[in-house]
Amino acid sequence: MQIAVGKEVDDSRLAAMQAAFPEVTFASAEKDPDCVRDADAYIGRIPAEIHARCTDRLRWVHATGAGIETIIAIPELVASDVVVTNTRGAHAPFVAEHTFALMLALTRRLSEFARDKQDHHYHAYGRGLPLDSLYGKRLLIVGMGNIGRAIANRALAFEMDVVGLDVMAPEQIMDGLTVLPMEHLDTELETTDILVVAVPLTAETTNLIDASRIDALKPGAMVIGISRGNIIDEAALAKRLHDGTLAGAGLDVYAEEPLPPDHMLWDTPRLVMTPHCAPGTPLTRDREFEITHENIRRFVAGEPLLNVCDKVAGF
Amino acid sequence: MQIAVGKEVDDSRLAAMQAAFPEVTFASAEKDPDCVRDADAYIGRIPAEIHARCTDRLRWVHATGAGIETIIAIPELVASDVVVTNTRGAHAPFVAEHTFALMLALTRRLSEFARDKQDHHYHAYGRGLPLDSLYGKRLLIVGMGNIGRAIANRALAFEMDVVGLDVMAPEQIMDGLTVLPMEHLDTELETTDILVVAVPLTAETTNLIDASRIDALKPGAMVIGISRGNIIDEAALAKRLHDGTLAGAGLDVYAEEPLPPDHMLWDTPRLVMTPHCAPGTPLTRDREFEITHENIRRFVAGEPLLNVCDKVAGF
Repeated sequence: MQIAVGKEVDDSRLAAMQAAFPEVTFASAEKDPDCVRDADAYIGRIPAEIHARCTDRLRWVHATGAGIETIIAIPELVASDVVVTNTRGAHAPFVAEHTFALMLALTRRLSEFARDKQDHHYHAYGRGLPLDSLYGKRLLIVGMGNIGRAIANRALAFEMDVVGLDVMAPEQIMDGLTVLPMEHLDTELETTDILVVAVPLTAETTNLIDASRIDALKPGAMVIGISRGNIIDEAALAKRLHDGTLAGAGLDVYAEEPLPPDHMLWDTPRLVMTPHCAPGTPLTRDREFEITHENIRRFVAGEPLLNVCDKVAGF
Repeated sequence: MQIAVGKEVDDSRLAAMQAAFPEVTFASAEKDPDCVRDADAYIGRIPAEIHARCTDRLRWVHATGAGIETIIAIPELVASDVVVTNTRGAHAPFVAEHTFALMLALTRRLSEFARDKQDHHYHAYGRGLPLDSLYGKRLLIVGMGNIGRAIANRALAFEMDVVGLDVMAPEQIMDGLTVLPMEHLDTELETTDILVVAVPLTAETTNLIDASRIDALKPGAMVIGISRGNIIDEAALAKRLHDGTLAGAGLDVYAEEPLPPDHMLWDTPRLVMTPHCAPGTPLTRDREFEITHENIRRFVAGEPLLNVCDKVAGF
């Protein structure tokens, strides 16, 4: 059995895999793209040109992250019998923490205070930097997967008023939390204090938070994007941050990544930006590779894989 | 009955008090210091020179904040029968949020990303800015009053390993939380990932986190100070931040406030600083004045006051 790995699997991870599964031959598709011709499986976000070199031997593609939008953008792969899995669940606590980091950076003015530290400036209390709080605010989480649920759980402890939306049938996921079908999005926007976008990027979610929905948000609301770009209309968001209709926004993901130096978002006020790093801790990588190793074990043993994705739904 | 108010009570708050209690004569001690001669009560952090002008009529001093360290620094007041109350409980969710803002600013590198935004610099993932997480970390909260408990509650939702220390007898305050007597401080330090100092400033807590205790912390630990200055040894903290023994610190309170522009803390690396603003939201002020109004009502009616402090213990 042969498994090709993408650039997501560095040399030390590859060595660990090879040691754990001596009966499998692992090969780096980055070093030798032709190795995929003999591959039964591919680990990583398989690029279209690499997928084009694969043969009928390919039965499994495993994304080491949670998003599979680049994988399901390959029509031949979607149409095939190849099983796609991901590492969903590995990232939830880390992305939830990042969501709170972005929300608290806005309410607690952390960017301004970081600048004040550089300037040795003690911004006396109440002098022009009004702080805000999360306590009692209405939080709308769009997408109640593992990440959305981890955010909700933390938000309840922060004594927020939490509403989740999901394409799945509504269910009582946890005490004190309302989960509604996605159709409620438009009616929820006008009472939302903080909107968190936690859905995967799919055909249905592309431009989901468009200009009209951004304009439908309550004045003074905040918007947080932590799943993928191309879901929130960046130009419409920037317009409402410039004119002050929105109190703030926090983005970890962008339509274009890496964001070029001349992008208009950099100079948008009331915006906290991080470079798609929400899940980025060594512990997250360890958890991703635990799931990956377990799936390799299952693949070798012919057992059902964990985290099988719906290639049409896109997650 | 006459009640004098300090500078903490602005004109609109004073007008609201007067309207709520027409039977009481309210007077501003800032505008007319001599008004306290006829005062039955004083609302605010009474200055020693104002207290010196009071007469035997004074029976009650009410701090509109939580800390009473300046009030109990007046020996005549401590020795007298004057009852001291505060607004403890009003601030807990807000100071707890600020504690998380400081912790997440450190683990999520928010100061660096704020600078990157100014520079239009997209710091590609994994390139020299390793992120950390709160998940699974051991959090030691010194001081389990309202604020300590609010931090603990949120930390449990963040899946942290939470230990609280308090001078009160240990008790099971909430599920999953260990509360130990303060004597355990030294043994706890060496296994602590994040130390949060949430005790009031009293004779017992002055310089509680001294140089030897800072040096006893596990390498890579973080320190958060959100109650009062003069509890953490700032010079010892700065030394361990400069040499990298500590991974980071977040301070909202300082031995000297406002912190002068030439203070050594401004240029201390790995330090996130905010200007004693943790409780500072309009909602906090509303909650403080709700407690204050209720205590005025009780004082007028001769009922027991809320939040009576122990003037010797200092909280």
